[in-house]
Amino acid sequence: MDFFFEPNGIAVVGATPEPQSGGLNLLVNLTRGYKGPIFPVNPKYNHILGLKCYPRVSEINGPLDLCIIFVPAKAVPRVLEDCVLKGVRGVMIESGGFAEVGPDGKALQEQCLAIARRGGIRIWGPNCMGLIDTAKPYIFSFVIPKDMEEAIRPGPISLIVQSGLLSGGFIITLMGNKTLGLSKICSIGNKSDVAENELLEFLTDDPATKVICLYLESFMNGRRFFELASSSKKPIVVLKGGKTPSGAKASFSHTASLAGDYELIKGILRQARVVQADDFFEMMDIARTLEKNFYLRRVRAGKPRIAILTYSGASGIVTADHMDPYGLILADLSPQTRKRLQELSPDWMPVKNPVDYWPAIEKNGPSLAYKHALETLHEDPEVDGIIVHIYAGHGIWLLNPKEILSGVKGSRKPILFWLIGPEKNREATRLPLEEEGWPTFHEIHRTVRVMGSLFEKPG
Amino acid sequence: MDFFFEPNGIAVVGATPEPQSGGLNLLVNLTRGYKGPIFPVNPKYNHILGLKCYPRVSEINGPLDLCIIFVPAKAVPRVLEDCVLKGVRGVMIESGGFAEVGPDGKALQEQCLAIARRGGIRIWGPNCMGLIDTAKPYIFSFVIPKDMEEAIRPGPISLIVQSGLLSGGFIITLMGNKTLGLSKICSIGNKSDVAENELLEFLTDDPATKVICLYLESFMNGRRFFELASSSKKPIVVLKGGKTPSGAKASFSHTASLAGDYELIKGILRQARVVQADDFFEMMDIARTLEKNFYLRRVRAGKPRIAILTYSGASGIVTADHMDPYGLILADLSPQTRKRLQELSPDWMPVKNPVDYWPAIEKNGPSLAYKHALETLHEDPEVDGIIVHIYAGHGIWLLNPKEILSGVKGSRKPILFWLIGPEKNREATRLPLEEEGWPTFHEIHRTVRVMGSLFEKPG
Repeated sequence: MDFFFEPNGIAVVGATPEPQSGGLNLLVNLTRGYKGPIFPVNPKYNHILGLKCYPRVSEINGPLDLCIIFVPAKAVPRVLEDCVLKGVRGVMIESGGFAEVGPDGKALQEQCLAIARRGGIRIWGPNCMGLIDTAKPYIFSFVIPKDMEEAIRPGPISLIVQSGLLSGGFIITLMGNKTLGLSKICSIGNKSDVAENELLEFLTDDPATKVICLYLESFMNGRRFFELASSSKKPIVVLKGGKTPSGAKASFSHTASLAGDYELIKGILRQARVVQADDFFEMMDIARTLEKNFYLRRVRAGKPRIAILTYSGASGIVTADHMDPYGLILADLSPQTRKRLQELSPDWMPVKNPVDYWPAIEKNGPSLAYKHALETLHEDPEVDGIIVHIYAGHGIWLLNPKEILSGVKGSRKPILFWLIGPEKNREATRLPLEEEGWPTFHEIHRTVRVMGSLFEKPG
Repeated sequence: MDFFFEPNGIAVVGATPEPQSGGLNLLVNLTRGYKGPIFPVNPKYNHILGLKCYPRVSEINGPLDLCIIFVPAKAVPRVLEDCVLKGVRGVMIESGGFAEVGPDGKALQEQCLAIARRGGIRIWGPNCMGLIDTAKPYIFSFVIPKDMEEAIRPGPISLIVQSGLLSGGFIITLMGNKTLGLSKICSIGNKSDVAENELLEFLTDDPATKVICLYLESFMNGRRFFELASSSKKPIVVLKGGKTPSGAKASFSHTASLAGDYELIKGILRQARVVQADDFFEMMDIARTLEKNFYLRRVRAGKPRIAILTYSGASGIVTADHMDPYGLILADLSPQTRKRLQELSPDWMPVKNPVDYWPAIEKNGPSLAYKHALETLHEDPEVDGIIVHIYAGHGIWLLNPKEILSGVKGSRKPILFWLIGPEKNREATRLPLEEEGWPTFHEIHRTVRVMGSLFEKPG
């Protein structure tokens, strides 16, 4: 895989100076981070972006590991023949029009694969968005350069995506949120050759990757995937496309995948201790929380016991209502904890779980009340995880996250925050919380679901 | 109810000049919109905010319909006796410490109710955040004035909330999103006297209210609620707190509510054609979409037929995967629609549903491709609703919503947008879409869920 991730020489077949085009985006993105030789290929031009342009791959002078191909599908076999001549090691076919469009496209894809196999070339794609390695940054993709430039944010989560466009727009949205950092993004489209298992193995050994997320419409080799996932020391989160009859039908059109029986797949994934998500942002919310390496009491017989700290009784109730499906239960707070929490709460307000701490907040100010409650709940051996509700508003309601969490010592149990408030103030609380490693969420159901996911795969 | 919604004279018992206090917030909020006489009540002061302050309610000179009470629970009965002397018509008890804290509090609450009944006074609360009418604006609540001032946004949705704090922080977050406008927000807390049915009746007749949302932990009189909801011409959305055993236990602590058997309640609500939500933002996303009065083909035998227009095959599949639970199916596009869509799509890309229009977008630019597809799908008699995926990025990807929707004529079928992209660009697309009456969402599952809710209650 090294010639994909760290190639010596890259050609862009279908490069063009045309504004707003994918062929230009590819070149611009390459020049932004890749330090090796870059070769535009297009018979119409002598130079693009000041780089010498070649009429065909076989005429390139210089080392050339990787060809990124972005020409109409019908033209691809000829390009591949040329790549064989040159002795290229890998190609990324980012154009569409292959197996996903019907029998003709499927035949074309098989023709490409045959040429590549004969010439000892590996194929990434087709119908994909290529590879991004944010740390370098290597952007082997036609994503919009300005969007990517503004958003890029290195981090510990890597993605394998059996799709094209999604990975572009989606990762830009994700990273732009200033919360989640990504490492490698592998968009493998129709995965005619390079597929999820090989990449999973690669990422399992990649020191920059701590959590691996996969969007898959099918499994190339389910048995091998199971082996890899079962033995992985890194958490794996899977979003399976084509779970329902409607989705499965759509999935066949997309990447020509046979979606398989989801009930069966679900059971196997669970056995392999893979966390399963149902939506894109959900997958990433789970991944960024798994990455925090919270201390998880190994839950054997019992269910994870959750404390809820809130300023709003109703929010506490709705949070509790969401726990059942994820196997979470309300913690039975220890007598010691009750006593300590009561210290700041007026006598008339008995301490229960959910801890409705509004009267204590009103009496002592939110800063002191939250600090005291977080420290106390975190120390309680009867509590495995804490969901905290914060309203970030003006004045005293603009909390200092460092301060309210200063009493949380030792191994960090999961403390997840549901955060609302006017946007500016909310951001002023959210970002420091995230920087200190405490995940925040905008919706209650998501907060609870992510808490549940932590305990699905005991650490 | 008029003396609550349009009182002649308001006293604030527990008013104080202390910064950051609820007693000060109440006064500040009142002075921002209420034009009638305002009477602070507190024996410690002669004036607050330049208003003459009275030692007790009975000494007030002037008309006095409404007393807002914000003193410790134990002091409330004496205040009420005084209100009887003065001939006050309604009180809002915004302090906590009543039935929600245990038997002593419950006795106190009953004592208050007895005094009020004897004196012909109606009670709103206790343990609540009062009333907000954004159009005037009347803010009979201790919400933080600066937060409220920045967020306030009049609109057609009214809320009845059996809770206190939530309504404050939550509505500020909601309105701050610049998408959703609220009319009346009624936080009724323990609802010892004024409860949901009376308010539901009031709001059903309120010309400023088009959709009514309720957060309830219990039903005071389920039969009456059923009658009101069944005969309401306005859509009603309910989020029930205390659905599960954990939630129900928490709910009892919160407002002393007996949550009831949720399976039973669910069936009754469905029969009354009430849309049911599971989370707070979900409830509001449903409400703001119901408010749009989309044209809904009356679905008798069949299920609502949805077209998905996307730039990303994977997103189309995941969208399709979420449809089953809400009884939605993929539309079988008419031959005419397929033909028209194919006009902009390359030959090799067959038109299916989900409509993966990426090749057409690439070929014709997103603006033309979206316009053509939206017009075509909207006109298809085989399509009841459309879910559209948009990536709002730089350059040509910053779409002009007016333009792409200019071909949508006649009765508007529901077109809901799933919108991602870098925040600034996303906002630049989101706000005009919302202004033109087209709802946008940030997550796929929510987009589909809201689409489903439209057809739950045929218009």
